[in-house]
Amino acid sequence: MNQITIIGCGLIGASFALGLKEQGFPGEIVGYDRPEVLERARKMGAVDRGAGDLNEAVAQAGFVYLATPVSVILDLLPRVAEMVRPGTLITDTGSTKARICAQAAKSVPAGVVFLGGHPMAGKMPGGIENAEAGLFRGAKYVLIGDGEKSTAETPFDFAQGRPRTQRDAEADGTVAGFIEWVKKLGAEPVWLGAETHDWAAAWVSHMPQLVSTALAAATADVAGEQDTEGLPVSLAGRGFRDMVRLGGSPYEVWRDICLTNKDNIAQALSRLEQELAHLRENISSKELAEEFEKAQNLVDRTRIQDA
Amino acid sequence: MNQITIIGCGLIGASFALGLKEQGFPGEIVGYDRPEVLERARKMGAVDRGAGDLNEAVAQAGFVYLATPVSVILDLLPRVAEMVRPGTLITDTGSTKARICAQAAKSVPAGVVFLGGHPMAGKMPGGIENAEAGLFRGAKYVLIGDGEKSTAETPFDFAQGRPRTQRDAEADGTVAGFIEWVKKLGAEPVWLGAETHDWAAAWVSHMPQLVSTALAAATADVAGEQDTEGLPVSLAGRGFRDMVRLGGSPYEVWRDICLTNKDNIAQALSRLEQELAHLRENISSKELAEEFEKAQNLVDRTRIQDA
Repeated sequence: MNQITIIGCGLIGASFALGLKEQGFPGEIVGYDRPEVLERARKMGAVDRGAGDLNEAVAQAGFVYLATPVSVILDLLPRVAEMVRPGTLITDTGSTKARICAQAAKSVPAGVVFLGGHPMAGKMPGGIENAEAGLFRGAKYVLIGDGEKSTAETPFDFAQGRPRTQRDAEADGTVAGFIEWVKKLGAEPVWLGAETHDWAAAWVSHMPQLVSTALAAATADVAGEQDTEGLPVSLAGRGFRDMVRLGGSPYEVWRDICLTNKDNIAQALSRLEQELAHLRENISSKELAEEFEKAQNLVDRTRIQDA
Repeated sequence: MNQITIIGCGLIGASFALGLKEQGFPGEIVGYDRPEVLERARKMGAVDRGAGDLNEAVAQAGFVYLATPVSVILDLLPRVAEMVRPGTLITDTGSTKARICAQAAKSVPAGVVFLGGHPMAGKMPGGIENAEAGLFRGAKYVLIGDGEKSTAETPFDFAQGRPRTQRDAEADGTVAGFIEWVKKLGAEPVWLGAETHDWAAAWVSHMPQLVSTALAAATADVAGEQDTEGLPVSLAGRGFRDMVRLGGSPYEVWRDICLTNKDNIAQALSRLEQELAHLRENISSKELAEEFEKAQNLVDRTRIQDA
C-alpha cells in the first residue's frame, strides 16, 4: 500500500491515521475533509498532505478509509468506487452497516474490494482535536463478512461475484494487509453479519446514546422549570457526568444512525422503558434487589467496571 | 478537635480520613467498622486505630462522621447522640437528607450539634479499596441548614431550640471548624434545605443510578435470550461502559436511598420515561434535533464534558 486516503479526518479518521504513523506505516497518508480540518490533520502529523478534490484524493490510493457520518458514506461510496483503480480496498467506519453494505453491493464494481467496518472506539468529546494514536487500543473492530446470520440477505455479497465471507475476505491480500494494521493499532477484529452488527450496536451504542440524550434533555427541562440557582445540575458528580457525557454528541452523526437503524433502536428503547417502569413500580419492593443483581452480574461478568 | 471518629470506613469515610491526614489534621482518627475493614483502614493509614465497640469509638470524640448506608445512619444516630459528650459535632454523609434530619430533630439532645451533609463525591467501583485522599477535590459538599425552602417542615430545626440555618451553623465554632476541613479537602460547601437536596439528588444521582441499573439489567436480559456468543455486550465500548458503571453499585446502599426518597425518584423516572418515549416516537423526525440541542446545551453549559 503506497497510498492510503482518509476521507473524514475527525476523531476516528485522524486517530486511525495517527495510529498508522505510530506503527510505521510506510506509505503516504492523504486526507480529505474541509480545509481547516485538513490543515489541523497535517499540523498534528496525522496526514502527509490534504487533497482539495475527491478524485485527486482517491485516484492513486491503494486503500480508502471512509470515516464520515453514515449519510456521507452512502453518498461518497458510489463516487469513490468509480474513481479508484482496480484492486483498491475501500473500507468504512459507519456506525450502522446494513444500509452501507447494501449500497456497496449495488455500486462497487467488480475488481474493487469493499469491506464494511466499525471500530467500537468512539469517545466524547470527539473531533480531530481529541484524536489519538492509541484510540483503537483494546477496542473491538467489527468487520462485516461472516454470513452465518446474514446469508439470507447477504447485503455485502457482491465482491468478485462470490459471497464475501470472513474466509473469502481474509484470503484477499489487501484485506489481510488491512487487518494486520487494525491489529497493530491494538484493536481486535470481530467478524459479524451486517444485520447482527446493527442489532448489537443498537443495544450497546445507539440506544445508550439516546438514553444519555434523554437524561440530559429531561434534566435541562426540569432545571428550566425551577427557580433554584442551577439546581439540580449544580450538584452533579462523577456519576451524572458519566451518564450525560454522550449527550454532548453531534446531532448530524446521530440523525444518520437513527435513520439507518430505526427499528433496532426503537425496539431496544422500548425494552429499556419497560425496565424503567418495572424499577419505578418496585422502588420499595424486594424485586429491586433482583434487578440490581442482574445489573451487577453484567457489569462484573464483562469486566466493564473501571480497570 | 483532638479526636474524630469515622463510623463506616468505606469509600467516603476512608477517603475523608485520608484527606484529613494529607491536610495535616492534628487529632487522632478513630475508625468503627467490621474488623477486616478497620484492619485495612489502619494499614492504609486512614485511621490511627479501630474501635471494637461503639461507645468506646465515640465517647471521647469531638467530632463523629457517620458514613454508612442511610438505614444504618438512622439506626446509629440516636445511639451515638446519647453516647457523645456535650458540644460534640455529629455529621453524616447519607445520600438522602429529609429522613435523617427528621431523625436528628427527634433524637439529638440539646448541647450536641448535628449537621446533615452529603458529599457529591461517589465513584464506582467504591469500597475502602478505592478510597483516596483526593476524592472530594472539586466536589460539591451539601450541608443541610438553609431554611429558605424548608422552613415549613424544618425537619432539621432542632438544635438548641432555634432554627439551624446556614448562619446559625456557621456561627457555631465546631461547625465552622468542620467546614474548614471540608474546604481543605478541596470540596465546595453548598447549603440547602433537606427537601430541596432530596429533590435535586433524585435528579442528578438517584434516578441516573436506576437508569444505569435498568440499562445493564435490560442488556443482560436480551443477551440471555439470544445465542450470540457474548453479543451484544462483547461489542461494548467506552460509551456503554460509562453508562452501566453505576449499575455495579451495591443494592444495600440503594435500597435505603430508594426507600427514603421514593417519591422524588419515581417522579424523575416518570419524566425520563416520557422523554425516552418522545425520542423513540420521533426517531426519524426533526424533533430529535431539538432534544439533542437541549442535551448538548446542558452538557456544555455545566462544563460536564471531560475536562
